[in-house]
Amino acid sequence: MAQSKSLGKQTIMLDALPSVLSYAAIVGKKEGEGPLSSQFDEVVEDAYFGTKSWEKAESALLFKTVSLALEKGGLSAGEIRYIFAGDLLDQCIGTTYAVRELQIPYFGLYGACSTMAEGLSLAAMAIDGGFAEKVVAATGSHFCSAEKQFRYPLEYGGQRTPTAQWTVTGSGAVVLGKGGAGPFITHITTGRIVDMGIKDVSNMGAAMAPAFADTVNCHLLDTGRAPADYDLILSGDLGAVGGEIALDRLDELGWRIEKNYKDCGMLIFDNKKQDTHAGGSGCGCSASVLCADILPKMRSGELKNVLFVATGALMSPTSILEGESIPSIAHAVSIASMPV
Amino acid sequence: MAQSKSLGKQTIMLDALPSVLSYAAIVGKKEGEGPLSSQFDEVVEDAYFGTKSWEKAESALLFKTVSLALEKGGLSAGEIRYIFAGDLLDQCIGTTYAVRELQIPYFGLYGACSTMAEGLSLAAMAIDGGFAEKVVAATGSHFCSAEKQFRYPLEYGGQRTPTAQWTVTGSGAVVLGKGGAGPFITHITTGRIVDMGIKDVSNMGAAMAPAFADTVNCHLLDTGRAPADYDLILSGDLGAVGGEIALDRLDELGWRIEKNYKDCGMLIFDNKKQDTHAGGSGCGCSASVLCADILPKMRSGELKNVLFVATGALMSPTSILEGESIPSIAHAVSIASMPV
Repeated sequence: MAQSKSLGKQTIMLDALPSVLSYAAIVGKKEGEGPLSSQFDEVVEDAYFGTKSWEKAESALLFKTVSLALEKGGLSAGEIRYIFAGDLLDQCIGTTYAVRELQIPYFGLYGACSTMAEGLSLAAMAIDGGFAEKVVAATGSHFCSAEKQFRYPLEYGGQRTPTAQWTVTGSGAVVLGKGGAGPFITHITTGRIVDMGIKDVSNMGAAMAPAFADTVNCHLLDTGRAPADYDLILSGDLGAVGGEIALDRLDELGWRIEKNYKDCGMLIFDNKKQDTHAGGSGCGCSASVLCADILPKMRSGELKNVLFVATGALMSPTSILEGESIPSIAHAVSIASMPV
Repeated sequence: MAQSKSLGKQTIMLDALPSVLSYAAIVGKKEGEGPLSSQFDEVVEDAYFGTKSWEKAESALLFKTVSLALEKGGLSAGEIRYIFAGDLLDQCIGTTYAVRELQIPYFGLYGACSTMAEGLSLAAMAIDGGFAEKVVAATGSHFCSAEKQFRYPLEYGGQRTPTAQWTVTGSGAVVLGKGGAGPFITHITTGRIVDMGIKDVSNMGAAMAPAFADTVNCHLLDTGRAPADYDLILSGDLGAVGGEIALDRLDELGWRIEKNYKDCGMLIFDNKKQDTHAGGSGCGCSASVLCADILPKMRSGELKNVLFVATGALMSPTSILEGESIPSIAHAVSIASMPV
């Protein structure tokens, strides 16, 4: 029987050091006009991705991104033991129809915008536990399918509040495996649901910030690390409003992280120029930023230790209509460019 | 690094033998009038479970079932390292609001009616990999919330076709741990998506049957086992129509399983007397049958080796309106009453 790998209350330490073998990020037109423009593997101008609906476009995007991650790693789908993936759409159809084409054994996830960290956590556990040699974690989102499902028909032209975030049209996919050259997944801190009673779905950053703070606090206590042990503590996606609340909350808990804190939703858009209000969001935001910006910088040595903390707001339009607040979650994945 | 536990194409063998420590099943009134009536831990007459909506009822049901499984095992939520759970509702809100109250670190799943097997698979891997001492796998469904979301308003009184299945109001929860007295999870075969082009959402058994056959075939080839090595090969939930198709398909693949084959959707209702047409379905069907009927029979020695294969139809109302067919998946979990 394997030795216990648990550390503190919610963290595990992976002694097999699952390695990032390959990754890819593909985004839509607006994301391609943002600050990370040149870093994405591909920017697709057609919002339909050659299909006839936004939902099918989301599937096409995810399929394309996973396929590209495999191709960049010189791998075929048949070499992948599991894919851990999910998305924001009802019944996760964005993922289902993409995975149907890939024919990889599939664990379907629902973690809203925390999906990339949830998938990486389980993918890393699959490698570390000896269950697989190569696995994929992937997710994506699409602005138009998300607006249609969660908010208003696009044709209605609804105005957005200043606290609202902009769902990214984008996807990220990571191939993890045994014995690669890194970066490596070293620790995983799995979040609990935190719900401070926020009911405003135009302010999901505020709803998710306490979940982020809870998981980061737990990670630091469990591992005995300090914020300074990371070059970067990266949230996905608290945006402008949630990010400030998160820093305040962590300050109350005794942690100052502002020096090495960034948010994927603030990195992907120039929020003033691009009219994206409080920043990007959606499963595809943190996934595409991770794969286009963070992992390449870890490979080049520019970043050495990153705590990737994707946050999810787990309400539905129905639960909000029924008067419920927004239950949130944050999963943290500690990534190191060198074995520790 | 852990030794490889993979077997063949899609199966893993668990050498730590995660053990079922406790389990519970709670169902609604109609399920309590079926053949398994006396076996459920509790039958709740109130379809609202004391709440004001069917969605909240589904959350209350899941919370109650997990709490009871913990209580029966003499455990508190604080002793559980992870909960793997999900349901059929958009954004899995049935689970989210239940898990919010439990405060257990949470991996959200979407596998439709395959969720119980998906959750058991990942829960068993978490134990076997050394990541946790005790974990929960749980799911549930509610007839009224499912009808409202997937089909027609109940008030409309829509007629059902003979091939239609009846979503179970019920929930099942299993606590897995290291070093218990069993039953034990010994093998896991993770499904790929199989889609033979069925578009009739009133015939999900037909859509899911090929996925069941694909996973069972793969499991038998990977493990070198024969159907006779199992006292019971249990599908959840192919119903009357899907069950027949599955037997035919496996016969074509060279396997005769009819002697030891049963389906959770056929066990939970007396379909003729209870007007449930082709049988029960929903995440809560296989979960509650497993926890009310199968696991107790394994504990008592009446059943020794069971292959539990929960099947999911992964379409959404939107994907069907857009002309898509029903992508299906089946996950198999091999359970043994004694260590092998």
